[in-house]
Amino acid sequence: MASSNIRYGEGVTREIGMDLQNMGARNVCLMTDRNLSVLPPVKTVLESLAQHGVNHKVYDEVRVEPTDASFKEAIAFARKDSFDVYVAVGGGSVIDTCKAANLYASHPEAEFLDFVNAPIGKGKPVTGVLKPLIAVPTTAGTGSETTGVAIFDFEELKAKTGIASRAIKPTLGMVDPLHTLHMPERVAANSGFDVLCHSLESYTALPYNMRKPCPPNPINRPAYQGSNPISDVWSRHALNVVAKYIKRAVRDPEDLEARSSMHLASVFAGIGFGNAGVHLCHGMSYPIAGNVKTYRAKGYNVDHPVVPHGLSVVLTSPAVFNFTAPMCPERHLEAAEILGADVSRVKREDAGPLLADTLRQFLYDLQVENGLSAVGYTKDDVPDLVKGTIPQERVTKLSPREHTEEDLTHLFEASLKLY
Amino acid sequence: MASSNIRYGEGVTREIGMDLQNMGARNVCLMTDRNLSVLPPVKTVLESLAQHGVNHKVYDEVRVEPTDASFKEAIAFARKDSFDVYVAVGGGSVIDTCKAANLYASHPEAEFLDFVNAPIGKGKPVTGVLKPLIAVPTTAGTGSETTGVAIFDFEELKAKTGIASRAIKPTLGMVDPLHTLHMPERVAANSGFDVLCHSLESYTALPYNMRKPCPPNPINRPAYQGSNPISDVWSRHALNVVAKYIKRAVRDPEDLEARSSMHLASVFAGIGFGNAGVHLCHGMSYPIAGNVKTYRAKGYNVDHPVVPHGLSVVLTSPAVFNFTAPMCPERHLEAAEILGADVSRVKREDAGPLLADTLRQFLYDLQVENGLSAVGYTKDDVPDLVKGTIPQERVTKLSPREHTEEDLTHLFEASLKLY
Repeated sequence: MASSNIRYGEGVTREIGMDLQNMGARNVCLMTDRNLSVLPPVKTVLESLAQHGVNHKVYDEVRVEPTDASFKEAIAFARKDSFDVYVAVGGGSVIDTCKAANLYASHPEAEFLDFVNAPIGKGKPVTGVLKPLIAVPTTAGTGSETTGVAIFDFEELKAKTGIASRAIKPTLGMVDPLHTLHMPERVAANSGFDVLCHSLESYTALPYNMRKPCPPNPINRPAYQGSNPISDVWSRHALNVVAKYIKRAVRDPEDLEARSSMHLASVFAGIGFGNAGVHLCHGMSYPIAGNVKTYRAKGYNVDHPVVPHGLSVVLTSPAVFNFTAPMCPERHLEAAEILGADVSRVKREDAGPLLADTLRQFLYDLQVENGLSAVGYTKDDVPDLVKGTIPQERVTKLSPREHTEEDLTHLFEASLKLY
Repeated sequence: MASSNIRYGEGVTREIGMDLQNMGARNVCLMTDRNLSVLPPVKTVLESLAQHGVNHKVYDEVRVEPTDASFKEAIAFARKDSFDVYVAVGGGSVIDTCKAANLYASHPEAEFLDFVNAPIGKGKPVTGVLKPLIAVPTTAGTGSETTGVAIFDFEELKAKTGIASRAIKPTLGMVDPLHTLHMPERVAANSGFDVLCHSLESYTALPYNMRKPCPPNPINRPAYQGSNPISDVWSRHALNVVAKYIKRAVRDPEDLEARSSMHLASVFAGIGFGNAGVHLCHGMSYPIAGNVKTYRAKGYNVDHPVVPHGLSVVLTSPAVFNFTAPMCPERHLEAAEILGADVSRVKREDAGPLLADTLRQFLYDLQVENGLSAVGYTKDDVPDLVKGTIPQERVTKLSPREHTEEDLTHLFEASLKLY
């Protein structure tokens, strides 16, 4: 159970130049995306770098919802120079891309699939030493600043996969609540749903001492190790903060208390799921995002169809937790209660339906699209979505309940409409 | 806000040989104390080392409640060899001694006072690279496996002081609840009180954004940074676990659930106070331990008078929290409620007396000696105790309430008798 270095506070981003100077950085790679490159978070970082005379180059070509191709472009940029520190300013897409760039630039001989999760890639352990990476998250969602995971769309498979190794965990996350004031309403909602599902999935993940296989040698154990007494603390705490603040944070971009609480919740949930893992909502979200046809999410300024990560995750959550509840009804009831349900007279066997209903009401209140059908899928697409979920074993095997392809089919079908 | 690598589970200690093999260790320094050297925790480690062919040397001369002299002996042992990994098997005394040995062996030119906290030592920042240290805690108390702190008695000053740097934080803590079954009843009680005070003090410590001075350069900020949203989660959670399990853990050494819960609570509280810091109970405990006359604690097999650390900390707790409550009454009320008090009709201004009474009852139930007078102090000793507290600024300045020498005098006097 490992955790993360986080510095939190309004305005901490202004200190980054001093940190880089303290580290003796001579050639910094600053990664971000086009939209952010003209917004205050990046400007603040650049001003701090200039003020402390830190030499740097900017890469602002990160793709929102990155792909293998966009990862490779960032890697090529990093490999053709010799950076000694990386700085990622952005959401999960930017931080994940920067992790990959740092990893492959530190392993110049490695081929792209070497470190990608098996069975899609070779899942080789990271042996070299990476450069320090400072992550400055500008969304309150992925928790990528706390984790050793980098996710991308593998385009030829139409599914998301990733790289998971403690070695790519950022050296420091600078969590500055002022940045989240720049999130559009739907970005705040969708990234908040990612936090919601990180909490719920990690809290209900298969317990660490029931996960199989159980490699006798510690070096072979996965980063996602199942729910455990340390991750539980974070997952539950994050869920409480989400329940209290997400609606305010979505509705009022100026509500600094709510937005900064959600920012911290994303860190808390990140530490939780970074240890425990996520399961079915995330496993099923990868083909939902990967098979996108023409859906263009509101509030996202991108040049390609996209189902935002948080939305792709949350749309199956009522069906998923209805399905998993029988394995640990107490935790599902506790989650429903935290999200506002009255559980005083509810039987254990009703934990699933209750949490599902609570989530549906929660999503309805937050004006979430009405299920997978609203983002362009029909019943005919379900076989492809199931097929895209099968290789996501890294996460789906952490589901507390074993499942067949038929179960997955049922879960996708039950998620076509929510209300 | 940094955290720690912890591996938790019954029997995890048996894996240590594999870990050392994975790390390529060629010459391991195993530190422990005489009593432990013949008990199962050390035996288990030695068997695992033998099984995996790990070359090692044993140093079992660690002093319970270490001194500058005993630190120096361990440092000399480490310096005359060239160890590539350190393993500490024991309570806080062993882990702290091993941290110091690793630090000074990695800085062969350093003089002893170089890294000791100012104003007693020079408080120089650690610049070199230390060897990995694996800590295997056998008491549920100090949380030393999670912190960058090493405490010792500075004999000529008759006070405890220490070394504080993130650089000495163990690489990995192996938390094996089976080890805590070997703790005698009073060791379980006193180490549990340390956990209790870590939680209470870190939860009520001065908030991180009110601490002064506030060094503009992050490199100059102290390890103990004041209470903050991350440490709060740990401190409060640890307090809940202590409240639920300490009595069972003390009374029944075979109660694995209670003892292993207290073991985890010590980790949780360690992560909390390792970030936030402790304040008056700890600051005042150092002269209480350092000025010991003839008191010999029950259940401790040592050849010198000793007030065990946890006891020296908890004896002033009723007076201290009565004094600090006006600065953050809500947190003191919350703590009293967690410890079993009915707070439903209590006014904010009564938070201090209520928490003090709750603590007195708690200590009485656990058969704690009746105040400082029961460990050999009279009113005449108070000026020395106050004098010994003054240099403990590293912690006392984290008190939420400013205090004069007169205040300290009053706190010691109020702690002579508890019941």
